[in-house]
Amino acid sequence: MTNIAICAPATPITRDHKVALEELVAAEFPETRVAFHEQCFTQAGHFAGDDLTRLTALLECANDPAFDAVWFAKGGYGSNRISQAAVAQMGPAARSKTYVGFSDCGYLLGALYHAGIGQCAHGSMPSSARSPGGREAVRRVLRWLSGDNSGLEPHLDGTTPAAAFNLITLTMLAKTPIMPDLSGHVLMVEEVSEHLYSIDRLFFALANSLPRLAGLRLGAITAVPENYVEFGQSEEEIARYWCERAGIPYLGRAEIGHTSANRVVPFGLAAPARAA
Amino acid sequence: MTNIAICAPATPITRDHKVALEELVAAEFPETRVAFHEQCFTQAGHFAGDDLTRLTALLECANDPAFDAVWFAKGGYGSNRISQAAVAQMGPAARSKTYVGFSDCGYLLGALYHAGIGQCAHGSMPSSARSPGGREAVRRVLRWLSGDNSGLEPHLDGTTPAAAFNLITLTMLAKTPIMPDLSGHVLMVEEVSEHLYSIDRLFFALANSLPRLAGLRLGAITAVPENYVEFGQSEEEIARYWCERAGIPYLGRAEIGHTSANRVVPFGLAAPARAA
Repeated sequence: MTNIAICAPATPITRDHKVALEELVAAEFPETRVAFHEQCFTQAGHFAGDDLTRLTALLECANDPAFDAVWFAKGGYGSNRISQAAVAQMGPAARSKTYVGFSDCGYLLGALYHAGIGQCAHGSMPSSARSPGGREAVRRVLRWLSGDNSGLEPHLDGTTPAAAFNLITLTMLAKTPIMPDLSGHVLMVEEVSEHLYSIDRLFFALANSLPRLAGLRLGAITAVPENYVEFGQSEEEIARYWCERAGIPYLGRAEIGHTSANRVVPFGLAAPARAA
Repeated sequence: MTNIAICAPATPITRDHKVALEELVAAEFPETRVAFHEQCFTQAGHFAGDDLTRLTALLECANDPAFDAVWFAKGGYGSNRISQAAVAQMGPAARSKTYVGFSDCGYLLGALYHAGIGQCAHGSMPSSARSPGGREAVRRVLRWLSGDNSGLEPHLDGTTPAAAFNLITLTMLAKTPIMPDLSGHVLMVEEVSEHLYSIDRLFFALANSLPRLAGLRLGAITAVPENYVEFGQSEEEIARYWCERAGIPYLGRAEIGHTSANRVVPFGLAAPARAA
């Protein structure tokens, strides 16, 4: 039996999301239980409750030995405001858990990975459980939490540590006290709803601040708004340009992003080594 | 006589901008000459010419002893791509010049200030010369370059070093090799066309990476797009929150921004000390 606690460190979900995920789990994952913290449905301005409310719910999930995993309900914006306090207050039960989410929840994954707490993984979230494509993304996470690795990002080789982040999230995280050391990692980055000039600008900032990586893979860059002028370089040309400028091997695309094709990327060396 | 060279390190302007500024200068600033580099009107995708074209024009202006000042024509995006190479190739004539611009051109101001080259100033740009309000902002810069300090930001006290930046520009600049040391400075920041959650996110990144400042002043936060939900904090509450969290004295508002009220902020101690 896998017991998963769900809380919302950034923005809230609705009860419809809860019902959709519970039905999927009941129908297809008989060995899995999901427990939604009531905080998931709280709203305070932009956030799923104020900072203390979100922090408290996260700590209740992480520090409860009854749970095997903590699944972040939704991104949006806000987990950065509580990440440092959260890792500081996580006890022994938090250390043996798996934590799954992506997008804005990358702040928390970064802080946890920096602190060496539990097993972090980039993966889709319960907020996706209402659409057919989203449900497939959610299944990948549930399968992985059940020991089935079929939903892992296919370029993981099990011998090079990996990490995956939203591009803005990583840029804002870089150089804060909760930034993990990504030296030697294959770093996968994705973005949504940003202009190409903004993608270029984020790569400028990262190229000047990342440690020596094993390489970078570019995930999906989706919902790029139209600009008054064509940028003049494609998303992949931008990534190649800055990798070259920074001496980072560009390794190609990654199957992560704000799409239903979003795959699971366990941080570090948690992916199984590929058969020879 | 003040000789000003104008080039475009980021995005291009049109000949209409040139005519408008030349007419204003001819009518009101008889002791000033403005020389537009032809590169200002070049276009390559998003940029005013490719990187090498923009870099070359900037260096021609900066390294020419005939000019007293270099005025950046327009922001947008792109000066970050050439800032490091630019300061590396600036010779003796560049060191005695004044450099004026803001918004995206803050990357260059930062790199110049970091390298100790010339006198940098945050100020409006020739791209504003076509509207009545913009012309008044442009006049402040022309007056300041002529020795008239009436357009200076009114909180400058001449005894505490100051600097002014666009919030995103500064966040992307922070921790790159061209970031100047702002220890002990009064830092003024402004932003345009960003959601309040994005403002909050930028303050999160900066609060965790800035050195010990004398204080922070919040400039205009304009053209904030509507979001699907109210953020729940005002722009000033956001600034206060992160300043408090980071131990930075919050000093109130600053008269800078993407508005016609934008004032001149010479970097460092270049503003005159206030009469006792």
